[in-house]
Parts: sequence; structure tokens; C-alpha cells
Amino acid sequence: MKKFVFATIATLLTTSHLMANSAFAQDEEDERLEEDRYLNDSIDIFAELDIELAEEDMPKNIIYLIGDGMGTTYNTAYRYYKHGGFEWDVELTEFDKHLVGQQMTHPYDGTEVITDSGASATAMAAGAKTYNNAIGVDHDHNTLVTVLEVSKANAKSTGIIATSTLTHATPASFGAHNESRHNHEEIADHFFDQRINGEMKIDVLLGAGLQYFDREDRNLVEEFEGEGYDFIQDLEGLESSENDKLLGLFYDDSFPKMWDREEGTVSLEDMTRKAIDTLDQNEEGFFLMVEGSQIDWAGHSNDVASAMSEMEDFENAFAAAIEFAEADGETLVVATADHNTGGFSLGVDGYYQWLAEPLHEMERTPEFLASEIVENGEIGETLSTYVGWEFTEEELSAVEEALTQPEDEQFFAVETVLKESVDVRTYTGWTTGGHTAEEVNVYAFGPGSELFRGLTDNHMHGFITSYFMGQDVTRDEVELEEAVNEEAEVEEAEVEEDVEVEEDTDVDSDVEEESEVEEDTEEEDTEEDVEEDDAA
Amino acid sequence: MKKFVFATIATLLTTSHLMANSAFAQDEEDERLEEDRYLNDSIDIFAELDIELAEEDMPKNIIYLIGDGMGTTYNTAYRYYKHGGFEWDVELTEFDKHLVGQQMTHPYDGTEVITDSGASATAMAAGAKTYNNAIGVDHDHNTLVTVLEVSKANAKSTGIIATSTLTHATPASFGAHNESRHNHEEIADHFFDQRINGEMKIDVLLGAGLQYFDREDRNLVEEFEGEGYDFIQDLEGLESSENDKLLGLFYDDSFPKMWDREEGTVSLEDMTRKAIDTLDQNEEGFFLMVEGSQIDWAGHSNDVASAMSEMEDFENAFAAAIEFAEADGETLVVATADHNTGGFSLGVDGYYQWLAEPLHEMERTPEFLASEIVENGEIGETLSTYVGWEFTEEELSAVEEALTQPEDEQFFAVETVLKESVDVRTYTGWTTGGHTAEEVNVYAFGPGSELFRGLTDNHMHGFITSYFMGQDVTRDEVELEEAVNEEAEVEEAEVEEDVEVEEDTDVDSDVEEESEVEEDTEEEDTEEDVEEDDAA
Repeated sequence: MKKFVFATIATLLTTSHLMANSAFAQDEEDERLEEDRYLNDSIDIFAELDIELAEEDMPKNIIYLIGDGMGTTYNTAYRYYKHGGFEWDVELTEFDKHLVGQQMTHPYDGTEVITDSGASATAMAAGAKTYNNAIGVDHDHNTLVTVLEVSKANAKSTGIIATSTLTHATPASFGAHNESRHNHEEIADHFFDQRINGEMKIDVLLGAGLQYFDREDRNLVEEFEGEGYDFIQDLEGLESSENDKLLGLFYDDSFPKMWDREEGTVSLEDMTRKAIDTLDQNEEGFFLMVEGSQIDWAGHSNDVASAMSEMEDFENAFAAAIEFAEADGETLVVATADHNTGGFSLGVDGYYQWLAEPLHEMERTPEFLASEIVENGEIGETLSTYVGWEFTEEELSAVEEALTQPEDEQFFAVETVLKESVDVRTYTGWTTGGHTAEEVNVYAFGPGSELFRGLTDNHMHGFITSYFMGQDVTRDEVELEEAVNEEAEVEEAEVEEDVEVEEDTDVDSDVEEESEVEEDTEEEDTEEDVEEDDAA
Repeated sequence: MKKFVFATIATLLTTSHLMANSAFAQDEEDERLEEDRYLNDSIDIFAELDIELAEEDMPKNIIYLIGDGMGTTYNTAYRYYKHGGFEWDVELTEFDKHLVGQQMTHPYDGTEVITDSGASATAMAAGAKTYNNAIGVDHDHNTLVTVLEVSKANAKSTGIIATSTLTHATPASFGAHNESRHNHEEIADHFFDQRINGEMKIDVLLGAGLQYFDREDRNLVEEFEGEGYDFIQDLEGLESSENDKLLGLFYDDSFPKMWDREEGTVSLEDMTRKAIDTLDQNEEGFFLMVEGSQIDWAGHSNDVASAMSEMEDFENAFAAAIEFAEADGETLVVATADHNTGGFSLGVDGYYQWLAEPLHEMERTPEFLASEIVENGEIGETLSTYVGWEFTEEELSAVEEALTQPEDEQFFAVETVLKESVDVRTYTGWTTGGHTAEEVNVYAFGPGSELFRGLTDNHMHGFITSYFMGQDVTRDEVELEEAVNEEAEVEEAEVEEDVEVEEDTDVDSDVEEESEVEEDTEEEDTEEDVEEDDAA
């Protein structure tokens, strides 16, 4: 079974002469681009934008940040959480200062109108709408060249950062190509095996998911090291490396939520700053994708405390990118989301109120607290250690009751009580454990940011960024080839297994899968799996 | 008891020389504006915008449209309702084409962080944040001069349009001043009694609420007619009038939802087109406020069908405004909302889907259908006459069961079953019967529209529009005076009654009021009252 047909020359984008012209020479291009539906569609919209950009006004570098699941409510909640909201004036967040518009997120799925992270990240990475579950492939499973690959073909440096596994849907869609987001090991292989013009395509990989790189069948860590990468596993290693190629995998699975991390461990901001420092050494410029991965997981879990934890982590990374771009002057920074999650809203029946105070009195997320309580059985002591407000007798009884459940259901039961106790104090509402269809905000700064104004469509982001990053690359110059892979036979077998997962698209069975996953209390990847299963 | 102290000269805005300068002469102005906190705050933000606008680039006319309760989800839903969403491309709505940013809606309330329509409309009308329940007065109950009043002082024509009563919070905040939105009769009086430089301040009033104008204690209709207004009550009258002063009151209370209106009756678009035609006769220009009032009521009622009905009515009005502005070239059109309502989201647990098809198969709203069923007792026939899809046996039984409730609870019980049957088919979610805190979208077109880009605060809208409309008016030239009112003693008595309503701010009792109101099945003002009570 052959899953991918990599064209030896997969091509993207337009010739460089177009970049210098203010008016888009659409007629001239239409013919040669006719076979690329995704490009033609994009160009129609692009021409409509009627933006005049001289070559010198285009960005040399792009930092593209994705707050996974960060619907507009998350931005509102984070502002009022951080800066109040009862006064006349409210201080603006870093995001607020750079709002330029919104983007539509619907996939090109045929049946579903709400996107998963694979379809939307593929759109933002490669300029093409596709089906839910896709990673860097179009609706017909053809490989789509991504902005990261265009950047590398144009001699720029490239990086991907996430607080999930690096093989998770969003980062994967920028650096890999797969029919299914569930094929984590194949995706990790692609990061190494797929070369652009013979070169490694990703210079800086920082995130989590060591399990998918250091495996029984293959040790990608050693292979990366063999290509000159520093392998990094902690903050000290991150800060001390002076190499221009970095593979940082800080957790076997995903990062803990920001509120739950131990002091001296790596943050999204740390990774972002290091990546910028490293990639900026290249005089040709760079493309960097940064994902605040777990905003979405907080949404799937209907956990407003975790949402604020992860918004803060993401804002700090965005602020670091803005700080660099302000000093640099040649860097476009875009922050957006791939979709909305949870049907999150501020205000509940009977109250014109949303209160952030209870969140400020929490030092850890409900996820952490529930784990502690299940482990040590100390309800009152654990809660009073980490939470400033008093739980009611009813809530404490409900936690006690939760601990009488079968062992594998205790974590979920305790966490649910704790999350509801936060919702009721903050006046927070949720409608779903899945994604929702609303537009997400777009924040942009720097040269080229005017192209993101107003209402955009998610694939336009991939088109515009690829256009900027491919300035000196003609369509025939992006070569995407697979390096020789000695374990090819092993992969083939795995693919067949994974395809079975992919075919299981019945919604009801997804819900069942979700419940089973949520009962899996001991592992950090609870919400991650929920998201994956939701999106199948 | 004296509720209002109208300064004989209430002042607003800045001298005309400021308008011609590209840089805002902030220092020079700060001193003289010091007493007006709301203006000083606005100016700080305005200076930050650093927009250069020559006098000739400012709009002569402004059409300011408010979709009450139109949070971002309503705009998403309406696009997919109108144009699908399963394809790669989705056709854009009129709103989509003109998205420029979002606005924050929080009031300056001291206790509540979520706004009601009074506080937010006052902010948009008069450039000042205020407390929930306020109508054109600030936090200390001082009168705030509104953009409509500034426009009239600057010799422009003015109009207000709504599908609610014209005395409802949003239109009221542009043309009246009251400590409480509940004082409908006082608000109607203000429309007539309060004069700008001795002139009637509102030239065109089109909407509903005849009950507050034609009363036992006072007949404002006759008084308006005495000042040269044409009094209009139907579409024929609207279309045939050639007068420059119009009072159109088409319903005793509010309009039916668009889907439920009889053929040949007035739409929001009809009123908007007539108002533009009428006001545009003035060579000095005009200010027109248009409210799509009942999007919010659909949200309070958690009724997605009514939401789409009212979005369509509102979009048609917006399109008419844009059509005029495109031809005119000197008109700024802004469409936005005052707040979000209902915690409306697209997508429910287990499904990455939102379906508009069931809505297209409905010819009437659940409100209409429930009224019919309660009246005629014919469940199956009523539903099959107006709804294309089949109801389940369980749903039909639930409607039958609802008809066995006490008479005054039947409407609400039947409507609830019908609304839920729509939600389940469309995959629609709601979190509350009240408002929520999220930003709302801002759509703008025409000269000056760049000032609405990015994230704005609601009071900035009032400031910017007043700034544009007051170009030749100095601070000392806006005179707001009350005409002699012979029935003053009668009003005094009523005021005391209304104040009791206002003081009833306990949330729980509001909820009870809401339930009582919802049981009031025979009247058209069901959701209107719900909103008023919610917002108290």
C-alpha cells in the first residue's frame, strides 16, 4: 500500500517578477496555475485585495503563531482576567493591540462544516482548504507544499514550536504530509526524511513528543544529531546551545499546562526567543511557526482555568515575537487560531457578570489538582494549598463521592467537580466538548500585515505567507524529496494500522472514544487524545 | 421629584480647527476638556490612532447600524445559513465584505462587567461609558449630548429607526436622556420635548411603539403632526409621503419577526431606504441610526430560527445603506452590535457540524408556530403547513403535553419544544438567556471608516461619529433645552412609579420576572420584556 506519491518536483507559487509588481498579473498567471485549484482560488481573492506592495515592503521573516482553539471569547476572557474590566478603561493585551480582522475556518470536507486542526493548519500552511484529518495534503490526498518548505527552498531558515507533541496536527501540517493526523510516527519521520533541494527542511524543532522520535523501530534523535542538530531536553540546554540546528523535545508526551509547570522548566516564550535568536542568524531570513497548543485542550475539557494558563503562555510568546519584529523592521508577525473550541462564553443565566478573581486565586489547574487528590487522597489540604477560595460543603462532598468511583474514573470525576466549581464562581458557560464554527481573530504586525486585514479565509494565510517567503523562488524550484529510509517496510505496516483509525469516522463512536480517553486518568495526554478523537 | 437637570447649554466636542489638522492638538485641548472625563479618555485613544484625515476626507453623512445582540456567532451563522459552507469558497455576506475590526462592550457600571443595551448604546451615541440601564446619561446621571444632537446642532438632518419600540434602549440612547431604560413614556416625551437650538431634534422616526406616543395622558402623535410631521402607519403611507419630517409607528408594540410578517408590510430595509431618501434632501448632510432590534430577542429566547430571520432583515437594511454610500461618496456606514446575546455557538458535543437546511425549510419562527398551535390546537397541520421537515413522535408528544399545561404556560412550553427541535437539527448551542461579554464585530465603509479599524472601545464610536458630525460646531453651540410641557405634573407622578422598577436590581428576582413574562403568551412583546428585565 502506497500512501504518498511525492512528485520529485512539487511546485508552489509564482515567479518572482510578480512580487515586484503592484498589480497582480492575473491573466498571465491563470493559465499556468490552472491545475492548482487552491492557488487559482487564492489568487482571485488576492487580486481583489488590491494591495500595492513593493518588493522592499515585503517581510524577510515571518513568525506565524497559532493559538489552537483560540476563539474570540478566549481573547476577551484573557483581557478581563489579566486587566480587570470594571473600569472605564481596560488595559489591552498584546493581542488586542494588533487586531486586524478575522478568518473563516471551515474545511473543504464535503460533509463537515466545522474544521479540525489538521484541515485548518494545512490551509494556513499550504494555502489550500482540505478535509478534516488531513496533514499537508489536499482533498484528493495530493501533497501540498507548505510555507515552511517554500521558505527553505528560498534559502531561509525554518522552525516549528509547540507545547504539544511536534507531531500533533498543527505543527505537523507545516512540516509533514499525511492522509491522517493520527500517524504520529510517520509524521516524525517526515520531519527528518523529507528534504528540500536535498537539505533538511526544519532547522529548529522545539516542543514535546520524544516518544515519537526515540522509538523501538527507529531513533530519529540520533539521526537528527547525525545531521548536526543539538538535541536538547531542558531549559539549561536550550539556553546554552549555540548551534544553528536544534531538536528540543522537553517531554515524552506534551507540556504540562503553564500553571502546572515546575520552576526552571521551558516555556513557550523560552522556545520562541531561542528559535528567533537561532533562525535570525541566517541573512536570507526565516519562517517560524509557533503553536500555543493547549488552549484548545482547555476548551475541549471546558476548563476556564487551564484556558487562562495557556493564553498567558501564548501571549508571552507573541509578545516576544512582537518585540523582535519591532526592533527588526523586516519581520511580519501574525497570531491567529485554527478554530474555536468549547462554545465558551462569558456570562450565564441571570447574571450580567464574568469574574476573573477566582482564577487569580488558583495556583494550579483543575487537571493538576485532580491528579494530586486522586494520588494522595487529601482533598481539603490539596485544595487549600493551591486554591484561595473556599469550596462549599456540597463541592467537597462531590469530590469525596468522586473518589469512591472505580479507580480509572476518579480523575475525571474529581476534575469535573473542580471545573464546575470554577465555572460557577466565574460565570463561565460552555456548549460542547468539541470545536465550533465561528471565525477566529487575526492579529498582525510588520511589513505585509495589511494583507491580513478584514475578513480573510484560512487558506489565504498560507497563500500570502508562501508568496512572501517565496520571493526568489520560481514554481519549478521547490523540490520535495524523500530521503532514503531503510525502515520503509516497517512504516508500510504501520500505515495500514493507522488507516483503520482514520476510517472510523462515525460520530457516535467518537464520543465513546472520548469517554474512554477521559477515563485514562494517569496520562498527561488526556485532552490531546480527546481532541484527536473529536476530530477524526 | 426632579429626575433631570438639563443644562441650558450642554456642550460637546471640539472646535472646528481641530478637524482640519492631521495631528490632534491634544495639549491645547486637554485643559478645556478636563471636566469631561468621557471626552478626555476618548481623545487619548484618538490621538493614539494617529490617523491623518483632511477635512475633505470626513463624511458628510453617517448611517450607524446596530444589530442588537449580534455577537460574532450570528454573523458566522448567517453566512452559512445564507450561502452554505461545505464548499471551498463561501459567498460573503454584506457584513463580511466590510469587516474592519471589533469593539469592546463592557459598561462603566461598578459591579457588572457585561453591558446592557442602554449602557452600550449610550457609549456609541455619546462617547461615554456608563452604567447598565442608563439612557444618554453618564455614571453620575448627567446628561450626555449624543451624536444625533450634535448633528442637529450642526444643521444636519437626523433619524432613528428600529423594529422594537422607538423608546427601547438603543434608539432611546441616541435621542433621549433618562436614568432608566424602563421609562418608555418619558423617553417618548423627550423625542418631542427636547430641542436643539430650539429645533425638533429628530426629523425621521420610524419603528414601533405607538402605545407610548398615543396615550391617555398625552397624544404625542398629534403634537408631532402639529410640528409638521407626517404620521405614517403602513407601507403605502411610508412610500407615498414626500414630507421631510416623518413619524412612522407601524405597530402598537414591536414588529413581528421578518419571517412572520404579512406581505405588504414594512421591513427594516423599507424604513432605511425611506429615511435615507428623506434625510438626504438636506444639503448639510444627515445622521441616521438604524437598529436591527430583535436579533437580541432571538438570542435571549435561544431561538436560532428567529436569529436568522432578524439577521436577514438587518442585512437588507445594511445593504441599502452601503448601496447609497457607494453612490454618494460622502457617507460613512458603520454596522456593529451593542453586545453578544445567548452564548450562541455552532456545533454541539460529538459533531463537527452546523446545518442550515432545517432553517430553510421553516417559513415561520417557533414564536409564530407556538402562537398558532396554542390558538388553534392543530399541532400536525400547523407544523406541516410551515415546516418542511418531519417532527419526531417524541417531539409531537411533547407539544401535546405542552398544551395540557395551564393556559398561561402553554405558549412558552410549546415554543420551547419547537426551538429545541430546531437546535438539535442544526447542531446549535446556547449557554444563557442573557448577554455575554465578548467583543462584537465592526463593519465600516466610506470616508472615515479607517478610524474603526482594529480593536475599538464602544464609547470611541460615539466620540468619532460626534467628531465627524460636529465639524462646524464649537463646544458652546449645542443647546439642549426642554420645550414647555403642559403635562409636566402628570409625568412627575409616572416617574416615581418607574423608579421603583429601576431599583429592583436583584438578579434572582429578575429571573423570576423573566419567567413570568415568558408565560405572557398573547403579547408580541415577550422577548422585549425579557431583555428589559434581564438588563435591569
